[in-house]
Amino acid sequence: MHLFGGIEAGGTKFVCGAGTGPDDFETARFPTTTPEETTAAAVAFLRERAGGQLKAVGIGSFGPVDLHPGSPTFGYITSTPKLAWQNFDLAGTVARALNVPVGFDTDVNAASLGEARWGAAQGLSDSVYLTVGTGIGGGAIVHGRVLHGMLHPEMGHIRIPHDTARDPYPGECPFHSDCLEGLACGPAIEERWGKPARELGEDHPAWALEARYLALALNAWVCTLSPKRFVLGGGVMNQPQLFPLIRRELASILNGYIRSKEVTEGLDRYVVPPKLGSRAGVLGALVLAGQAFENAQSQGTTA
Amino acid sequence: MHLFGGIEAGGTKFVCGAGTGPDDFETARFPTTTPEETTAAAVAFLRERAGGQLKAVGIGSFGPVDLHPGSPTFGYITSTPKLAWQNFDLAGTVARALNVPVGFDTDVNAASLGEARWGAAQGLSDSVYLTVGTGIGGGAIVHGRVLHGMLHPEMGHIRIPHDTARDPYPGECPFHSDCLEGLACGPAIEERWGKPARELGEDHPAWALEARYLALALNAWVCTLSPKRFVLGGGVMNQPQLFPLIRRELASILNGYIRSKEVTEGLDRYVVPPKLGSRAGVLGALVLAGQAFENAQSQGTTA
Repeated sequence: MHLFGGIEAGGTKFVCGAGTGPDDFETARFPTTTPEETTAAAVAFLRERAGGQLKAVGIGSFGPVDLHPGSPTFGYITSTPKLAWQNFDLAGTVARALNVPVGFDTDVNAASLGEARWGAAQGLSDSVYLTVGTGIGGGAIVHGRVLHGMLHPEMGHIRIPHDTARDPYPGECPFHSDCLEGLACGPAIEERWGKPARELGEDHPAWALEARYLALALNAWVCTLSPKRFVLGGGVMNQPQLFPLIRRELASILNGYIRSKEVTEGLDRYVVPPKLGSRAGVLGALVLAGQAFENAQSQGTTA
Repeated sequence: MHLFGGIEAGGTKFVCGAGTGPDDFETARFPTTTPEETTAAAVAFLRERAGGQLKAVGIGSFGPVDLHPGSPTFGYITSTPKLAWQNFDLAGTVARALNVPVGFDTDVNAASLGEARWGAAQGLSDSVYLTVGTGIGGGAIVHGRVLHGMLHPEMGHIRIPHDTARDPYPGECPFHSDCLEGLACGPAIEERWGKPARELGEDHPAWALEARYLALALNAWVCTLSPKRFVLGGGVMNQPQLFPLIRRELASILNGYIRSKEVTEGLDRYVVPPKLGSRAGVLGALVLAGQAFENAQSQGTTA
């Protein structure tokens, strides 16, 4: 069992962990201040916890990030509105400080990997992790690997039917107005109903509408990615009444067309909450560390 | 170079081919009558063409089909409205007749594989092939392999925004009314405008509307699969004026949000017609044959 490090690099905090897996994993949190200060705190924690035994580090980062293999700025945070972090070489800084291979991906891809390895999608070759909070983001696992394609998904920005008679709210996405994120993220709920999502009662009509929008999106991903399970996390999904509402809407939208047993045998096990809670991202980063270690090993073997 | 066979099993005809690739490939067509008669014709053609040298056969089939590995009815056509073909063991019948390994997938997945190997998406690890005709179907290549997930995509059945003021036509999908297929397949165009798509002039407003719907769908797949290219085929796409209209709508919908060079450097190379024409399916079946041969070899080696 190799000792790896994980860093979930968020816009407000860094969650760091060192260990071999979820049952042997110590974490710490550091506020996101300057790149130098925050990465120094993360590096110091990993150095101290691992005592020279660290084999690799994985980072799941806020973005936008450069994930193009071979790009001169691979592993950088790029055009973020957080000015101090613009064009910061996050992966390279950590790699040089600790002198180990570093795996790098988006925060949501890391979380999807964590849930697929040790969480609610454990053992499944194909799954989707969605986070519904300040924004909406998704990570897809296909053939057991994170889907990147030309870059990475931007699942929050698909367009879904918007019934403006039922919901005249125009949407809050600065790029697309009423894309999924524009209609269904936490700030959209707050702006539409005049108070934060967490202050709306569980019978508030906000939840039926939210479930409708999320189910329309899930339908698009069922028809496109054909995942074996959806894991829905993020602050908005802390409303447990959403899950049965989403399942009911999804069944209604699918209308019996998809005949896979995952869908036809009831959706209770198909649309589920995360199992790793707030550790999904940093545990996913640990998986990225393992992958970086294996890549370095195989390159060493063939070099 | 191994000699393989390919069968594109369609609802009205079977296209069969034998060879080593697109430059060495002889094809024949047989009408789809009874399962016994049609498969016998296909088998006889492959047997005669290959003269005992056939290493494997691939089949891209109309459906629904059973693609679950390990299922007792894997390789069967299942609940098709073509009664004689219901629960017919297509893959098994061909394998027993020719005594070679048989690869099996949907017709659209085979076409996507053909275009990815030898056609308009050649050399790309991630692409989407869409056929827009009597129905709408898509196949996704992810990490160089056909995406199956729990079964296979049903891309035609995603829901897209339907502006009923601009387009009061209710959609023709018997399951979902105004899903993508319900709004944008060939029969929907004919029903909406009162004449077949091929009889509408190239300036007919039908095409701007069609482009809008297809671009909304492409946006969903850009945001979900992040493909490096879209290949759009099928009868409706034989209208060349559709391509610039779709590209313009897609750029407008994306609105600068996706920063990959594939998208930002203009969409002329991102949304393209097929290169293999009517041979995409049967050449894709040839790729499936190669995969089946390699699988059989590796199982033989490890057994």
